[in-house]
Formats: sequence, C-alpha cells, structure tokens
Amino acid sequence: MAGEFVLLTFPESPFGMRVKVALAEKGIEYEEKVENLFDKSPLLLQMNPVHRKIPVLIHNGTPICESLIIVQYIDEISKDKSPLLPSDPYQCAHARFWGDFVDKKIHPTGRRLWANIGEEQEAGKKELIEGLKAMEGELGDKPYFNGETFGFVDLSFVPFYPWFHTYESIGNFSIEAEFPKLVAWGKRCMEKESVSKSLADPHKILDFVMGRRKKMGF
Amino acid sequence: MAGEFVLLTFPESPFGMRVKVALAEKGIEYEEKVENLFDKSPLLLQMNPVHRKIPVLIHNGTPICESLIIVQYIDEISKDKSPLLPSDPYQCAHARFWGDFVDKKIHPTGRRLWANIGEEQEAGKKELIEGLKAMEGELGDKPYFNGETFGFVDLSFVPFYPWFHTYESIGNFSIEAEFPKLVAWGKRCMEKESVSKSLADPHKILDFVMGRRKKMGF
Repeated sequence: MAGEFVLLTFPESPFGMRVKVALAEKGIEYEEKVENLFDKSPLLLQMNPVHRKIPVLIHNGTPICESLIIVQYIDEISKDKSPLLPSDPYQCAHARFWGDFVDKKIHPTGRRLWANIGEEQEAGKKELIEGLKAMEGELGDKPYFNGETFGFVDLSFVPFYPWFHTYESIGNFSIEAEFPKLVAWGKRCMEKESVSKSLADPHKILDFVMGRRKKMGF
Repeated sequence: MAGEFVLLTFPESPFGMRVKVALAEKGIEYEEKVENLFDKSPLLLQMNPVHRKIPVLIHNGTPICESLIIVQYIDEISKDKSPLLPSDPYQCAHARFWGDFVDKKIHPTGRRLWANIGEEQEAGKKELIEGLKAMEGELGDKPYFNGETFGFVDLSFVPFYPWFHTYESIGNFSIEAEFPKLVAWGKRCMEKESVSKSLADPHKILDFVMGRRKKMGF
C-alpha cells in the first residue's frame, strides 16, 4: 500500500492492538509512536483534537481516528489483500454488529471489573461474563467468527484475549473453565504472526492495570 | 430495491428516525411496526435477542440491528441511488467518525440533560453544548456536513434536530442563539421530504420526555 503510515498508540490499548493486527494482516509497514497517556504529545492533540485519544493512524499526514473506523479504512484502501469485512452486505452488517458489541459490552464491562472493588467490581464481572457468553455463543463451533478465515470480528475481539489474564486475576475466576471455546479461539488466533506480534504480553497488561489500580487507591 | 422490509421502531427514537430517513432517501417501501418500549413484542426479542432494542430492520426475514449499521447496510444494498457514504475511503472514515461522534457525544449528553435534575442536568447541558459546538465547527459554512449534498453525517445527526426543543425546554437555553448554523442546517434538511416525513414532531418528543421524567419522579 502506497504512502507513509504512522500509528499513535499505547502498548496495552486493545484499540491500538486492533490497528496493529489490521496493518500486519495487510502487510502495511508503519512507524509506531508510543504515547504517554498521562502526558499526551502535541502530535496526538493535533491529530485527534476531538477525542484526544489513541489510536490515531496518520496516512500521508492525514489522521484517521477510532479503532474500528481505522480498521475499515485500512480494509478499504487494500481490499485485495486479506479482506477483513465480508463483501456481502448482510454478512458485513453482521460482522459490524459484533465488532460494535465488543466495544459496548466487553471493553466497558472489563474496565468496570478492573477499575473498581467490591460491589461495582462484582457487577462488572457479572456483565463481562454475560458479554463473553454472548461472544462464545456467536463463535459456536467455528474456528473463527466469520467461519474458516480470520476477519473483522476476530480482529475486533482478539486484543482482549491478552486482557483475559487481568480479568481473571482481579475477578478471581477462570475464563478458560467457563468459556473454553473462546480460549481455544484465542490460542488459534495467536498462531497467526499478524496477531502474535501485535498483542501485548498478558503479564505486562496486568502490571499496567495494577499500577492504575494503585493510583486509584485500591 | 427487491425484497420485503419491516422496521421495528418507536416514533420518538432518533435511532429509528435515522433508518426511516435512509429508507426514504433510497425510495425503499417498508412496513413500520411500532414497539411499546415498556412491553416489547416477541418479534423484537426474537429479532434482536442481544440488545433487545429498536430499531431493527428486517429484510426478507433477516434482522439487521444498530442504527448506523442498518444505515450502512441500506446504503450498500442500494449504492446507485442517493449514496450516503462517500466512496473515497478517507472521506468515508471521516463521515463514520462524525456519525460515531453523534452516538457518543450528542445522544448520551442530551439524555443526561433530560433524564436528570440539578447538578447532573447541568453537567449534561454543559457536555451537550460542547458536543453541539463540535458539530457546528465540523459543519462550518457548508450547506451539509459532507458539502453540497445530504449524506451520512446529516442523516446521523438530523433526528436530534426535533429533540432540540426538548433540550432547550428542559435545559432552559436557546440552541438557535448559541448555534445558529446548526439550526439553519436543520431547517435546510427539513426541506427534504425524506427528512420531514421521517422525523417526529418536536412537541410530541417533549410530551414523551415529560412523561418519562414524571415516571422518574421529577
């Protein structure tokens, strides 16, 4: 793919990981600039003045923001290689629905679990388990969410796979025991180099979260 | 467009209005089934078991959920008539960004304003004004968000135009005084039959909201 790509991200961000997996799937080279979330760079504030958040993909100087929108952009500018979204409009809507579900029901419930204690944490754990149950139901016995090949829903959800360790450690439960098909799927995805080289180490994510919890006074 | 379309919706829902505008723009005939939000139909629960929410577009028996995903589906199955999303990938990402912004920064802040009293209501009003300011900045001096023609961002945001009356009445401020360009844009959109026939009456929205507030004890 022609042009210069710069990714503003943060290693533990599942949203940043999504973009890295998409770029890797498409074989697009890019420069990664790691942001400090507590001291955001002038470049980030300039490139995403509305939300002031990573990830931002800068393509030939032009910013694209919001991870699932970035992923669709990457898919659209390089349709010929490893298509991520199905070409059939209904299948495409179905994939978008589950990508959106991850944003609405996995990320915020996981955060509610790790960024709280007591009743709030328990409520987050319960909601997260409901979300994971829905994801496992959608996966069913297929190797990937869309069937035989890795695609948009896998890419949207797989950055949460290394977060499972954090959810389990703080929530005191086993995702593998409750959702064996999801964990088998996560391992299957990790066999792909585009995924394994793009995801953060689960232990580093837990260290990051424990640091955040300490700052929160837990 | 071939096939049978059924829309499960609710008259005051801005998300349902989006789908109605999109169907009208494309000239797609459909049957509208009005849901009772406090006694959801078995059909709605069957068609959207995950979120149990309207709008749901049922096309030849198959459900599509989440308003912006439905709108993209409608656009993709009828690309030749009144395209809503730009074909250029960057312009398309830019339009998706602002549609997403409406979902994240207009709807929830507006709800925070009308579904609360006191400090929470004031906080909602402040956030809503920030969101409207960003929308007006993005519109600038263009007739529509994408330029000369009505498109995806207009369609995503215009169902909130009849909600302005509710925000103003409950928040005790004038959107026209603070954001004249947005109000002029709303009036411009209402000159289109696809919009005017799809949007709810502002007074009925206020009645609906006052009923909800009464139930909440305000």
